[in-house]
Amino acid sequence: MTPSTLRLTGPLQSRKDWTADTCPIAATMEVVGTRSAFLLLREAFYGTSRFDEFAARVGISQPSAAARLRELVAEGLLERRPYQELGQRTRMDYHLTQKGLEFFPVLAAMMEWGDKWVSPSRVSLRHRACGQRVATELRCAEGHLATVGEVELVLAPEPVVPGGH
Amino acid sequence: MTPSTLRLTGPLQSRKDWTADTCPIAATMEVVGTRSAFLLLREAFYGTSRFDEFAARVGISQPSAAARLRELVAEGLLERRPYQELGQRTRMDYHLTQKGLEFFPVLAAMMEWGDKWVSPSRVSLRHRACGQRVATELRCAEGHLATVGEVELVLAPEPVVPGGH
Repeated sequence: MTPSTLRLTGPLQSRKDWTADTCPIAATMEVVGTRSAFLLLREAFYGTSRFDEFAARVGISQPSAAARLRELVAEGLLERRPYQELGQRTRMDYHLTQKGLEFFPVLAAMMEWGDKWVSPSRVSLRHRACGQRVATELRCAEGHLATVGEVELVLAPEPVVPGGH
Repeated sequence: MTPSTLRLTGPLQSRKDWTADTCPIAATMEVVGTRSAFLLLREAFYGTSRFDEFAARVGISQPSAAARLRELVAEGLLERRPYQELGQRTRMDYHLTQKGLEFFPVLAAMMEWGDKWVSPSRVSLRHRACGQRVATELRCAEGHLATVGEVELVLAPEPVVPGGH
């Protein structure tokens, strides 16, 4: 039978000897930890940039939208840029930064999973150049597809402190 | 300049004509919507199965752990199975179902993003067979790697209702 969980290796092998104190998944949830934050990011990927449109499309109150957008700006996933419409005063809208853009695989993986396991939707992601469906894949640097049972968790050695003893 | 957001196509092209009412990302967040739920799933992928160990390793109270595990069982990501240690009464532990196992790409993508953008950790995922680092990739069915700017959002046609008019 193929193992269905990660293989823990080296000093991680015995779970009782460690806990995931510096877990990057926990760190991510500290930064983008609410349903509203995920959906505001989704909207930014749809090209939404104006405050009113964010609130209306996510279906949350303007104070909630303002608070979540402020957090996403403070965390560096969105940035505010000035824009001006003819005869109007200058306002600020919201755009994805590189940090925000690189969050896309998380949303794409959630989209696939929700679509398959929770409620099928009519939207899908396609590759512009060839029209084929796009999906998230787990692959190694050698190009092999990997299921979770084929993956192991590895601990890097402690960094050497320069000048340390 | 490469576009940095998804291209919206067909009836999705004009954002003001639609909102994401049946969004699979929102559906996913309804099911696995809390930091604790994400971390309990992480633990299940580490092989944790006993109730006490889940609570201790995630660092949440036993009542919280019980509530979140109950939700994950009710939503079908975990299943309870009986086990018995010598001289003890039968107890139940928790294992990932297929639905839970297929959530792994979401956690892997969060792990990568958190590691790069929030706080570097010493753990990484490797392919058991070849030892190379494993990462999530967005690829189309033709095998092309796709960045978000190369991806478009497509709406499938309304399903035809058999016998409908």
